[in-house]
Amino acid sequence: MKNSMRVAVLHQQRDLRFEEIPKPEINADEVLVKIKANGICGSDIHFYEKGELGPFKVTEPYVPGHESAGKIVETGREVTKFSVNDRVVIEPGISCRRCEYCKTGKYNLCPDVKFLSAPPVDGTLSEYAAVPSDFVFGLADSMDYKAGALVEPAAVGVHSCNRAQITAGMKVAVLGVGPIGLLTLQSAQAFGATEIYAVDIIEERLQLAKNLGASHTINAEKSNLEEKIMELTAQEGVHIVFETAGSTKTAQTAVGIARRGGKVIHVGWTDPGQFSYDIETLMEKELDVRGVNRYANAFSRAINLMEAGNVQVKPLITHQFKFTNVVDAFDYISNNKTEVIKAVIES
Amino acid sequence: MKNSMRVAVLHQQRDLRFEEIPKPEINADEVLVKIKANGICGSDIHFYEKGELGPFKVTEPYVPGHESAGKIVETGREVTKFSVNDRVVIEPGISCRRCEYCKTGKYNLCPDVKFLSAPPVDGTLSEYAAVPSDFVFGLADSMDYKAGALVEPAAVGVHSCNRAQITAGMKVAVLGVGPIGLLTLQSAQAFGATEIYAVDIIEERLQLAKNLGASHTINAEKSNLEEKIMELTAQEGVHIVFETAGSTKTAQTAVGIARRGGKVIHVGWTDPGQFSYDIETLMEKELDVRGVNRYANAFSRAINLMEAGNVQVKPLITHQFKFTNVVDAFDYISNNKTEVIKAVIES
Amino acid sequence: MKNSMRVAVLHQQRDLRFEEIPKPEINADEVLVKIKANGICGSDIHFYEKGELGPFKVTEPYVPGHESAGKIVETGREVTKFSVNDRVVIEPGISCRRCEYCKTGKYNLCPDVKFLSAPPVDGTLSEYAAVPSDFVFGLADSMDYKAGALVEPAAVGVHSCNRAQITAGMKVAVLGVGPIGLLTLQSAQAFGATEIYAVDIIEERLQLAKNLGASHTINAEKSNLEEKIMELTAQEGVHIVFETAGSTKTAQTAVGIARRGGKVIHVGWTDPGQFSYDIETLMEKELDVRGVNRYANAFSRAINLMEAGNVQVKPLITHQFKFTNVVDAFDYISNNKTEVIKAVIES
Amino acid sequence: MKNSMRVAVLHQQRDLRFEEIPKPEINADEVLVKIKANGICGSDIHFYEKGELGPFKVTEPYVPGHESAGKIVETGREVTKFSVNDRVVIEPGISCRRCEYCKTGKYNLCPDVKFLSAPPVDGTLSEYAAVPSDFVFGLADSMDYKAGALVEPAAVGVHSCNRAQITAGMKVAVLGVGPIGLLTLQSAQAFGATEIYAVDIIEERLQLAKNLGASHTINAEKSNLEEKIMELTAQEGVHIVFETAGSTKTAQTAVGIARRGGKVIHVGWTDPGQFSYDIETLMEKELDVRGVNRYANAFSRAINLMEAGNVQVKPLITHQFKFTNVVDAFDYISNNKTEVIKAVIES
Repeated sequence: MKNSMRVAVLHQQRDLRFEEIPKPEINADEVLVKIKANGICGSDIHFYEKGELGPFKVTEPYVPGHESAGKIVETGREVTKFSVNDRVVIEPGISCRRCEYCKTGKYNLCPDVKFLSAPPVDGTLSEYAAVPSDFVFGLADSMDYKAGALVEPAAVGVHSCNRAQITAGMKVAVLGVGPIGLLTLQSAQAFGATEIYAVDIIEERLQLAKNLGASHTINAEKSNLEEKIMELTAQEGVHIVFETAGSTKTAQTAVGIARRGGKVIHVGWTDPGQFSYDIETLMEKELDVRGVNRYANAFSRAINLMEAGNVQVKPLITHQFKFTNVVDAFDYISNNKTEVIKAVIES
Repeated sequence: MKNSMRVAVLHQQRDLRFEEIPKPEINADEVLVKIKANGICGSDIHFYEKGELGPFKVTEPYVPGHESAGKIVETGREVTKFSVNDRVVIEPGISCRRCEYCKTGKYNLCPDVKFLSAPPVDGTLSEYAAVPSDFVFGLADSMDYKAGALVEPAAVGVHSCNRAQITAGMKVAVLGVGPIGLLTLQSAQAFGATEIYAVDIIEERLQLAKNLGASHTINAEKSNLEEKIMELTAQEGVHIVFETAGSTKTAQTAVGIARRGGKVIHVGWTDPGQFSYDIETLMEKELDVRGVNRYANAFSRAINLMEAGNVQVKPLITHQFKFTNVVDAFDYISNNKTEVIKAVIES
Repeated sequence: MKNSMRVAVLHQQRDLRFEEIPKPEINADEVLVKIKANGICGSDIHFYEKGELGPFKVTEPYVPGHESAGKIVETGREVTKFSVNDRVVIEPGISCRRCEYCKTGKYNLCPDVKFLSAPPVDGTLSEYAAVPSDFVFGLADSMDYKAGALVEPAAVGVHSCNRAQITAGMKVAVLGVGPIGLLTLQSAQAFGATEIYAVDIIEERLQLAKNLGASHTINAEKSNLEEKIMELTAQEGVHIVFETAGSTKTAQTAVGIARRGGKVIHVGWTDPGQFSYDIETLMEKELDVRGVNRYANAFSRAINLMEAGNVQVKPLITHQFKFTNVVDAFDYISNNKTEVIKAVIES
Repeated sequence: MKNSMRVAVLHQQRDLRFEEIPKPEINADEVLVKIKANGICGSDIHFYEKGELGPFKVTEPYVPGHESAGKIVETGREVTKFSVNDRVVIEPGISCRRCEYCKTGKYNLCPDVKFLSAPPVDGTLSEYAAVPSDFVFGLADSMDYKAGALVEPAAVGVHSCNRAQITAGMKVAVLGVGPIGLLTLQSAQAFGATEIYAVDIIEERLQLAKNLGASHTINAEKSNLEEKIMELTAQEGVHIVFETAGSTKTAQTAVGIARRGGKVIHVGWTDPGQFSYDIETLMEKELDVRGVNRYANAFSRAINLMEAGNVQVKPLITHQFKFTNVVDAFDYISNNKTEVIKAVIES
């Protein structure tokens, strides 16, 4: 094998280049993965457009991409669980394994997490990636690499449902049915929710939500969300509200539609800064409002749910691009956000 | 309406009679249900055959039956949730609502529970039953009375899954696939279990388990249960073992097939008295072994799962009898236990 | 016994009268309690001053008071747990016992709860009160009636700790150390918290907090709360923040001082309406923000903790009044809020 | 520093020798601890007497000891949390950090755990030990090395209480008040238990239990345990039973004294093999029977509880020996088991 590899590098805002850099070497506990597919996340596009996201800024060139699957081409000498040619997905948040958060199972809160594609850490829009073997998961036989690339967003859905402690027979509302909303919706169904109300303002997405299992869809621009949910639930409200849209306005409606003793799960990153929120209603209904920050221990469960057919990712893939066209792909996605639900880059 | 009604009365062991007794009057918070269907439970047959079960003895004539659905024909003056002609199912364990168990949501443990058909309390193999309105639940439109009669055993399955705290993606073994096992299996699937191993020694039941969602079936007389489960789980064992067979031998195998940190749920009433159990393995694997005693807060969720199609009860009904033939029905069921999975008496 | 009794009646804003009304008769499941002591709650004073509180308005004369203890003088015929002369405390939120909230142990969320002293329901500033026997709890021998009157606010502290799921060794901040704050602080300690930071702006209350177990006290007007908490916790933040002050400003500081994966418990009723709240930080730290609405299943546990000496209520009682002086008492308390921590009316 | 160190080596049954071996070198993430004190555990003595314990056998010489505290004398280059001269305690179960158990916070169930002093892995009865820095915890200023050595058994108590999910106000029985029982008892109290019944057959230990917080003590040879517990709990039974004695007979009494819905926690390793256990009662009361295998995430909490004075370890230390006399110490302890509660070896 040659010692260089092709890679997409974001130099600064709107300056993505297709380049050649040295191929990584692996440590004793790592595997080298030949990347076969990358899903493009809203955060990748956000960095592309703005050069920053939350606390992260593009101050030096880095490689985007963190939804990826591929084939193992080399294993470190301590690696026993995997072999060359194994088909795998990469969990991109490499935690320290040693702090109190890692030790207690909440490794997504590890302050020293190294998240692939959070600048300056390189991501996986690359020919190869070296990854610790405990952050790699075998794909089920029934899953191809494109499906594998979408395990990462599916894991957000699974983790959100864990945070919600959904049990069978619950009523759930999903506010926003972009990729994360659609995967949270399916996860909720896989966890046993029997009534799921999907809310959005784009009809195509609501139709997809319906196809993927929503009991009812609500276009929040065409009907009064709170009235509609209350009508559907005999004025009780839902057990769980998943807020995945991340808009201030949507986030503010969440506590109003939860039933007494229910939960609101904030999955979609809201606008920065504080905004008005109804704590009095939270108290009166004795709600739990819970944040979600990525995922922990969710990849193998997401794979199980996909293998069982309970979570389908393929219907979300509206666009596909070749890796060699990655620069055009980012440009296209950036310019067609309503149309693109999920784009996948294939190598 | 006339003031008497027809009823099945068990006078003593093997002495069931079809009789006429006064129709009950209802209290202010009760409804009068015209019974349309009764499922026959193993415990009904046990009383019929032995005149006793656990701490309960037939010392005076009583009415069997506690899996029942019907139509409301009268409502007490304080009842607001129901109207005449509502189609309902009856939850038969009427708890005191005032003790610490009732107040904390564990009303199945109420020491003053009045369980319909636990002698000397009369059950529902009767033309009418007077029931407090909070122990009555509306049937979904899609459910007929026969399905309604099976909400009760389905509730055992739901409660068993609650006790197991199943979450999506888990691997589960169900030991024994009689009616309770088959309903627990389906509940486990509704709660998100993605691998379910059904174990029994009757091939017809294993086939039915397969049809209802089991990933694998194991005939415990034809293969080594523990070896087979370990092979299917890459030597890990299952997250949850449901023991529903109630035989000493089966109960003893449970801890051996649970994975480290897993749970064993005892659903099937074991033989009376103590038997040998492997506490050392329970400690080494740090298992939870949990008992199940009927159910609490499970009826409306069981109805939700049945309405959503996640739990099917009709395939369990192998035999149907007319209420007027109830005496023959008990005799038949008692003599054909392997063949009968669930028998329903229709009025 | 004569058939009338003395009672405090709030006719409207600032119009409290000492009157004589008929003595209540008890139902079969009720006991008649001769009231011996009433704690005065901030809500009693709020109704006295404003004639309303949240959704409740004084539209007809009603009796305030809901923190009360007394002696049983009569028992209904169904009452078996209590006898005449038993010394008891009254739990004032009489729930329906039949709805889904009651059945699942969350009876504080019962939509049909009848809360003594929430207009128009009469409270306990009365010579006698008729109460269902399951809302009455025996005092420990070591507790006098004044201590008994404070079981109610202690139950708020216990319930808040339940909601927080405190376990031993945790670090906790209590924002606001009025009566509820001081009782929450002591409950947190009883639940095993080993570091408790008490925050207020009144030095006397901080001193009392220190005496009752606070590890550190912080005067929020004299030092930067967030900096101070971060300094005390090695920049980690606390596991649990109890917000008991109810001011918008205090409520807004809560998420900033919680550690990653921690919880914020809103105990103090905030100002009506929405206010700015930092959802982004809640997400990044993956916090749980939980509301508290009164209590459920907390009275007997509060009594246990008081009997064990883990929660002390007597140091909170700064003022005592005779029942015959109740009108003056309300006036005094209303005019001396900083000075009065807890006032008790003795009969 | 010289390159050798003194160490106690168990060659085979009853053949413990005081020897000199090479001093260990540390890896980048390790610290070198100069051991100052070792508590002697029942398992150390068991290996000394029998040459085996459960699955572990002494097939080659190894170093006993796993309850140890000392001073850091060297730090690996990746270690940032500790410095030379820090006073620390060692958590002896070094887990892999990479398997599903480690990732989910149950690292005590890690199949690849390397437990110091479980043959053939060397323990800490040694001048120095090289330990990964995430398995080392700083001692509180108020704790000396002898107290530090007892953090390990205190952690068993803390973990047992975690498994029990004790909350404030509960009633608890501790069966067996040897070192683990006495520490579990104190942990239970620290977690908020308000009634604790200590059970043993040695009066001196019961007296010590009383001094350390037991509400009542019961000599199981002098009174009927079950009758006594039922009498103390108004025939209800206790919320939590901790079985720490490990004898078959004691383990069998546990389910009988638990209240409905309660928990039995098996902490003491029972005799090998199966024994008769009352599953029917477990079902009828809907109990949870939970195993305990060492601890996870318990050391820093145990330190917090000791620092707060909620758990006292010094009263347990009945015997002290010099490291140079370790061979005599083992002999003495082996021959005086009733008299020795906890012996500490000081270096």
